Amino acid sequence: MTDRDGAPDAEPAPRTRRGRPGYDQATLLRRAIEVFNRKGYDATSMGDLAAELGLTKSAIYHHVPSREALLEAALDESLAELTAAVERARDPRTPGTAAARLRALVAESVHVLVAHQPAVTLLLRVRGNSALEQDALRRRRWIDHEVAALVREAVDEGALRDDLEPELVSRLLFGMVNSLVEWLRPADGPADGPADGPADDPAHDGAADRVAAAVVAIAFEGLDRAT
Amino acid sequence: MTDRDGAPDAEPAPRTRRGRPGYDQATLLRRAIEVFNRKGYDATSMGDLAAELGLTKSAIYHHVPSREALLEAALDESLAELTAAVERARDPRTPGTAAARLRALVAESVHVLVAHQPAVTLLLRVRGNSALEQDALRRRRWIDHEVAALVREAVDEGALRDDLEPELVSRLLFGMVNSLVEWLRPADGPADGPADGPADDPAHDGAADRVAAAVVAIAFEGLDRAT
Repeated sequence: MTDRDGAPDAEPAPRTRRGRPGYDQATLLRRAIEVFNRKGYDATSMGDLAAELGLTKSAIYHHVPSREALLEAALDESLAELTAAVERARDPRTPGTAAARLRALVAESVHVLVAHQPAVTLLLRVRGNSALEQDALRRRRWIDHEVAALVREAVDEGALRDDLEPELVSRLLFGMVNSLVEWLRPADGPADGPADGPADDPAHDGAADRVAAAVVAIAFEGLDRAT
Repeated sequence: MTDRDGAPDAEPAPRTRRGRPGYDQATLLRRAIEVFNRKGYDATSMGDLAAELGLTKSAIYHHVPSREALLEAALDESLAELTAAVERARDPRTPGTAAARLRALVAESVHVLVAHQPAVTLLLRVRGNSALEQDALRRRRWIDHEVAALVREAVDEGALRDDLEPELVSRLLFGMVNSLVEWLRPADGPADGPADGPADDPAHDGAADRVAAAVVAIAFEGLDRAT
């Protein structure tokens, strides 16, 4: 195992890299999000992260320039599809009544959340402690605002009740959707769930359909038995 | 200012205490919860907390034995009234149908949350990183379980629709209620809100009534206009 120059230390680094074929950038991000969610982003230094992942700090810096770059990638992942879904629901060229587009948006939000559950969990815990976190909060407020406008449109077309403030309805709808991150696992509690890839799990995907249908049923029809 | 023995150092400690008349145990707890919510409990050492509150660590230890004792008091505060409300709703001696008791419980949960918003915020961020946190998660699961049983009772009496799983309904109801901690402030964002005492603010109390009514309306009647 020593090379021609007799330097026995030349090998270990490449061997270690070959031994962790999964640590490309996407895997690093996924594992980092898992650690941030478990220990708290603010409480996790780059050294803590490296120790949790069994890497050196320099191995992490090989992929990303900073701890905040990992957070930024996670926040972008969690917001990109939802933002696109909101834009589509608000686009006048999208077919369907405002009420139908709102229903579809609520269901789609559940699917986006399930597909990106760890990243969304991290997003929902962001408290605005940096410019990056403030920007994420600003993007969340934009979503609230657009959904409220869609609710108002659906009220104006006569499809939805008119005795509730659209801003409040928007907050409560997404409150119900976002709460899924707290418990939507094959088994109860983060420690019992799989560490990664719920979106690729067919059972989990079935759960998303079932939960999306329940959220839409409660939000639009209510729990009371129709008389 | 020197005493008879000429010891000029005898005074400062009592004078400092008189200068902070608010720092009794209840005030310390309220301020600590505010700091934990802003910085994250796991990221806040006793030294950080002391610095944030402008106290010495020993001044804090005068009131509480540990950082975890502050967390325990906060978790108890957030769970005690809600647990009592759930027990009352489930008690066969409480008058009213199961559906009426469930509606009342949902409305009461909103009021409990508003009255103890900072403590409930901290509770909802607990991830089970210690025996104390695990116990809080266990108490939350007990609430989920009891509410699901009440939903099942209301379905059985014919008042609620029977096509949704009671456990899922329980989670979504409390998901909607719990989401209030994220935004229910006179102004948007924790930084803009008052640091303490929302329950004593009449405007905020009016908000609680309004939000409780909206949560009950959406959950039981739905957003669709009655036809």
